[in-house]
Amino acid sequence: MVSPELSQFQTSPMAKHSSRSKAASFLSDGFLFVGGATVALLVVWALWSFINPSLSSNPSFSTTVGDPKTIISSESEDCAQGSDDRSDPTFYDDPKLSYSIGQTIKNWDEKRREWLNHHPSFAAGAGDRILVVTGSQPSPCKNPIGDHLLLRFFKNKVDYCRIHGYDIFYNNVLLHPKMHSYWAKLPVVRAAMVAHPEAEWIWWVDSDAAFTDMDFKLPLERYRDHNLVIHGWAHLIYEKKSWTGLNAGVFLIRNCQWSLDFMEVWASMGPQTPNYDKWGQTLRSTFKDKIFPESDDQTGLAYLILKGKGKWADKIYLEGEYYFEGYWSEIVGTLDNITDKYVGIEKGERRLRRRHAEKVSERYSALREPYLKEAGSGSGSWRRPFITHFTGCQPCSGDHNQMYAGESCWDGMQRALNFADNQVLRNYGFVHTDLLDSSSVSPLPFDFPA
Amino acid sequence: MVSPELSQFQTSPMAKHSSRSKAASFLSDGFLFVGGATVALLVVWALWSFINPSLSSNPSFSTTVGDPKTIISSESEDCAQGSDDRSDPTFYDDPKLSYSIGQTIKNWDEKRREWLNHHPSFAAGAGDRILVVTGSQPSPCKNPIGDHLLLRFFKNKVDYCRIHGYDIFYNNVLLHPKMHSYWAKLPVVRAAMVAHPEAEWIWWVDSDAAFTDMDFKLPLERYRDHNLVIHGWAHLIYEKKSWTGLNAGVFLIRNCQWSLDFMEVWASMGPQTPNYDKWGQTLRSTFKDKIFPESDDQTGLAYLILKGKGKWADKIYLEGEYYFEGYWSEIVGTLDNITDKYVGIEKGERRLRRRHAEKVSERYSALREPYLKEAGSGSGSWRRPFITHFTGCQPCSGDHNQMYAGESCWDGMQRALNFADNQVLRNYGFVHTDLLDSSSVSPLPFDFPA
Repeated sequence: MVSPELSQFQTSPMAKHSSRSKAASFLSDGFLFVGGATVALLVVWALWSFINPSLSSNPSFSTTVGDPKTIISSESEDCAQGSDDRSDPTFYDDPKLSYSIGQTIKNWDEKRREWLNHHPSFAAGAGDRILVVTGSQPSPCKNPIGDHLLLRFFKNKVDYCRIHGYDIFYNNVLLHPKMHSYWAKLPVVRAAMVAHPEAEWIWWVDSDAAFTDMDFKLPLERYRDHNLVIHGWAHLIYEKKSWTGLNAGVFLIRNCQWSLDFMEVWASMGPQTPNYDKWGQTLRSTFKDKIFPESDDQTGLAYLILKGKGKWADKIYLEGEYYFEGYWSEIVGTLDNITDKYVGIEKGERRLRRRHAEKVSERYSALREPYLKEAGSGSGSWRRPFITHFTGCQPCSGDHNQMYAGESCWDGMQRALNFADNQVLRNYGFVHTDLLDSSSVSPLPFDFPA
Repeated sequence: MVSPELSQFQTSPMAKHSSRSKAASFLSDGFLFVGGATVALLVVWALWSFINPSLSSNPSFSTTVGDPKTIISSESEDCAQGSDDRSDPTFYDDPKLSYSIGQTIKNWDEKRREWLNHHPSFAAGAGDRILVVTGSQPSPCKNPIGDHLLLRFFKNKVDYCRIHGYDIFYNNVLLHPKMHSYWAKLPVVRAAMVAHPEAEWIWWVDSDAAFTDMDFKLPLERYRDHNLVIHGWAHLIYEKKSWTGLNAGVFLIRNCQWSLDFMEVWASMGPQTPNYDKWGQTLRSTFKDKIFPESDDQTGLAYLILKGKGKWADKIYLEGEYYFEGYWSEIVGTLDNITDKYVGIEKGERRLRRRHAEKVSERYSALREPYLKEAGSGSGSWRRPFITHFTGCQPCSGDHNQMYAGESCWDGMQRALNFADNQVLRNYGFVHTDLLDSSSVSPLPFDFPA
């Protein structure tokens, strides 16, 4: 079991190790990468929107789903040297508005839109803007190498965010004293929404998850009609009634009224409520494979999907076509083969192995994309897995699920982190030649892997 | 002593604890904050430069010092949808150009300028662009709480960079196998220069240094005629010949030919050279207060300043007017008083305590600036110290200097990190009420501290 004191921010209440029988499915070109994409997306997009303001009112970037009002209204066309917030009141001047979960916010979509109208430099591109949020407990880990692993997982996330121009916030305090362990992320996401009205999406990524494809970007266009995206499989939730039908350790949530309301309902199953024990019983009797009695965030989310059809489920996207987050145990053994496949592609195409500034990485990723058409995605594919999640490994507490030898967890983390690091280090001229050797790198020869 | 294996990235070879008698000096308004500053500097600056391209050729943002050629030439006026690098060759296509220290690069200023000309979206604002670089050893720390502290120090740096729109790169591999401990940063800075031609400055910040003023920004205008900025005092180097006349744990270095050449000369005193022992003797005989025999980066830098007048020293700025990096032991005891002073200012001025989005923090910092005129800066002042450096504490190895009780190091780090975190958390609605309690926060009341 996970000790709440020791893993206040880890999602997985237990190892999730069901064998997930997903058909490998193929990603279409359209959403994977923006063809001929611009680089350093935020800056360039801001520039582009500025000279071409009609894009700002493109509904695919501007409508908020689940609420009749648009967040990014066409007023953002008045983008130029417009107003300034020094005197204009915004929602921040409302004494009743709170950053804390449990305190209802009303009319958030209008409030955000108004803030954006007062800050036109943030209105351009706001429909795509992502803030990554992650975190861990305030105190040192029980596992002697736990904090070292957390440091490397965090470095990995910062690398991904730097490459794509995303902001990242690492939190290591409990914002609600009773919402510990896997419940702790909800107050953080709530506070981040209020603190970041410029961001359309908050992307929670657990501390024990690593980006293992530094090039891949979320296909936001696919989620335009949804407000919450999680990795999951409908049949496992609706038919098998399994609490492992989804994983709540990585989720993308729109910064909108629907999400604030949803998080209140979700949080109402948590340890800070008088109904916590009752919810534990309800969840356990609904999802028969849940073996521990406490109400947990993941089963609670599955329950809301199962029972809340229409109200909640319609706006939740269960992503199963790629590794929105993937189960490490089925991934780490495939990394060497994936490396070989990518090397093979680059051997055949000089422009793919051309050295370049880190800032223009997205452009080179887009060039590689046509060569990955046959790779598939998700389980069984040889595309790099997007996010590898060490579910059940508990790096901080060290209390990994007994079905794994501890070594397999730690080795797996090293392999995944070095696999990711190689994609980063390449742009600094170096490479780990052995994924199990974190210490050693070699200079990468010119024109590698010609 | 520091074990090189255990502290491959820590600067301080020993505790630096000279009592540094700097006169408190006052910062003028001009450079501290850009008055009426824009927010989210990169995006807004890019926008502004785009509509007002003549700014890009303003010499204060565009000339490279120490080299007759300008890095950001006025060609960047052709900023609009210009060329694209897919076919144009750049320095990256030169098989002889290396990311590794020890491999000379020639004509870097022209090469960088050419790259910027090929990438006009990065040319605007390039003269001010900063990449923060930091790092630590590849393996877990010997000190049981070492990695936890490194994680928190890194989070602190990421917070600062997010607030100001800077990129940050954390490295935890040895890029040159023999350049361990305090020498390890030089190969990292070299690689970062080549990987980031869009950045004018590389800002190395040791893993054991924390930003303790989240608002303060480097007064770059002051450094326009220099290529390297370090915290130091000329009289301690030239007259006292003390190796603690500067601190090499934090430095700002311009991404230019002078810097590449300087780093080769600096690195030539390192453990990867046959002259390492000889340099140890030379440095020790020159700086009599150096008590350990090995050649170290800091004394080497002091030596180059002392002996290299004209060639090197003229382009090195010894910053002593504010805490470019400050000695923790003289800082941590002042933090409570500083908090009280700032609270006092905000009690008297409603607009300074107004809640706001994190993204517009720079605007509110600028509003506070006039109230800090009397604060002074550096030693003895009540302005927040910019960077607090835990010189001699060795968080990773735990081998702190025997002159401190270990507790004073760890308590000092908690106090400094929570002092900084309070400046961040405020924009998320929370506050640590006790700087020694990292775990607990309270919601910040509306209009605090009215």
